[in-house]
Amino acid sequence: MSANSEVILVARPVGAPKPSDFTSQEAAEPTMGAGEIEVKLLWLSVDPYMRGRMTDAKSYIAPFEPGEALEGGAVAEVTASDNPKFAVGDKVTGMLKWRATQTHSGEGLVKLDPALPNPSWALGVLGMPGMTAWAGLTLHGKPKESETIVVSAATGAVGSLVCQLAKAKGLRVVGVAGGAEKCAYAVEALGCDACVDHRDPELKKKLNEACPKGVDIYFENVGGVTLEAVLPLLNPFSRIPLCGRIAHYNDTELPEGPDKSGLLWRLMLVNRVTVRGFIVTDHWDKFPEFLAEVTPMLMSGQVKVKETVMEGLENAPEAFIKLLEGGNFGKMVVKVA
Amino acid sequence: MSANSEVILVARPVGAPKPSDFTSQEAAEPTMGAGEIEVKLLWLSVDPYMRGRMTDAKSYIAPFEPGEALEGGAVAEVTASDNPKFAVGDKVTGMLKWRATQTHSGEGLVKLDPALPNPSWALGVLGMPGMTAWAGLTLHGKPKESETIVVSAATGAVGSLVCQLAKAKGLRVVGVAGGAEKCAYAVEALGCDACVDHRDPELKKKLNEACPKGVDIYFENVGGVTLEAVLPLLNPFSRIPLCGRIAHYNDTELPEGPDKSGLLWRLMLVNRVTVRGFIVTDHWDKFPEFLAEVTPMLMSGQVKVKETVMEGLENAPEAFIKLLEGGNFGKMVVKVA
Repeated sequence: MSANSEVILVARPVGAPKPSDFTSQEAAEPTMGAGEIEVKLLWLSVDPYMRGRMTDAKSYIAPFEPGEALEGGAVAEVTASDNPKFAVGDKVTGMLKWRATQTHSGEGLVKLDPALPNPSWALGVLGMPGMTAWAGLTLHGKPKESETIVVSAATGAVGSLVCQLAKAKGLRVVGVAGGAEKCAYAVEALGCDACVDHRDPELKKKLNEACPKGVDIYFENVGGVTLEAVLPLLNPFSRIPLCGRIAHYNDTELPEGPDKSGLLWRLMLVNRVTVRGFIVTDHWDKFPEFLAEVTPMLMSGQVKVKETVMEGLENAPEAFIKLLEGGNFGKMVVKVA
Repeated sequence: MSANSEVILVARPVGAPKPSDFTSQEAAEPTMGAGEIEVKLLWLSVDPYMRGRMTDAKSYIAPFEPGEALEGGAVAEVTASDNPKFAVGDKVTGMLKWRATQTHSGEGLVKLDPALPNPSWALGVLGMPGMTAWAGLTLHGKPKESETIVVSAATGAVGSLVCQLAKAKGLRVVGVAGGAEKCAYAVEALGCDACVDHRDPELKKKLNEACPKGVDIYFENVGGVTLEAVLPLLNPFSRIPLCGRIAHYNDTELPEGPDKSGLLWRLMLVNRVTVRGFIVTDHWDKFPEFLAEVTPMLMSGQVKVKETVMEGLENAPEAFIKLLEGGNFGKMVVKVA
């Protein structure tokens, strides 16, 4: 191994990303400029939204460029500092390159609370995915006690917190997840009243049975068959916080017909549905409010966390590929050092 | 002609309604019960939502039954009264059967302001379509000065008021309408900054040119090609009040593919769009607020009204059929007596 290393995007993936779309390579030793810090990666986050950055379609965030290091949520340790806000030994979190050692202005990086038992939580339940769950449920789901919520990707980084927060607010919580093991976990550990397997050919029937009073909130992370199964169950004045569509991230063209967009529109009209697309960063001003609500629930054990950990910076592409295949159980993170 | 007559639904239309789906026939002379009133129809409203009531799909309002008289918004004159709230000669508006003379409990009927110069306005600009325009724009569109709004069916009963209210609030208003005559009217009479013909093969290009700063509000009444042309122009945090989809009301099955629903979902997510299906009756408590805002604008001539009038109860089905074909210009009404 060289003294420094990084993972770059070799080519924009077409369809499902392949290992050959990425490579790890030697990287130059960083040279710290005035006012900068030098950090060593400890943990990397892989998240579904990153698939969007690998294409060059217009979106809310600039695309990755082939030949350049990838970038994502990370936890790192300060190894040198010319910035009075950071001291050597501080653990920080924020957006960092997929590069073992790197310099940074410090802007946008936040120091980790030393009391945090597990630094990788800053990338999951107490970070971007947790905030996504909280903001989507609270600000756009507008949950009311005894309503029914359906949570897609129920055991994922976002969904698992949505389930637990919704349960704490007194809702009937119905998860949708991939496979018997995840469904069992959703009910036993996350407190879902029911969980349906999206691979089950009887998904529609089983979801219908699990929602005897219809659906008031659909927390939408996936699209695909889950969305289709939920649509006919929507109650009047139901809400759909929409923050992801992982079932479609690898689509290279629009799926074969029939064109269901008119049906979607009809059901939204007839049931007076509110669909609200949102991106977690739009609500970043409420991050302290989120932390104040969720941290105590986490520390007391009321909120449970599951992670899938892969080791080594060079394995980050594999972690990302597995994530898109549903090969994670809970939050997928990469332990770098 | 018999002493009384009515128009009934003969059969649920399949696809576009045909004249043979309806018939007019003799009706029994009404027998007024205790506490009731007898009314004579003056004006009937035909409205796109009535197409939905002709099918038996689950919706927000009960379906019409074949063999029974149709029902819709109407203006009538009280010809006999055993109800202390109504006197002979009063003009009333509300939901009435398509029957020349009928009895009614009086519940849900409202007396017309005798100062109203034109009673049919109670079926258009000051009635259900006007309230739909006001509620959709105000409550769900949340317009801000200098934003851009695109209004589908811009010269129709709803759209024409949306255009004029939005213009009064200082927005850039871009109409979409069918044909050069309607587009000219939208600009010259309704004050639109531009109006694009939805039949123009270059709709997408022309709409793009008409919206140099993108689209902040899309007032959605139609679906189809108009929706597809607007979607790529939506700005971040744009709003879509959704109250109709007339381009699809005669669909008998889902259109051939590709399936564009995933694309719709993607654009809603990336641009953090709020889509809000709504039905005017959900907001009926705000009807006085609507009247208070729009009536003075109408009386002063700031708001202009156009109607297409057909004569004769027996021609109401033809009026309805024409309406779905876009054969109206402004509000389509039927003068009965």
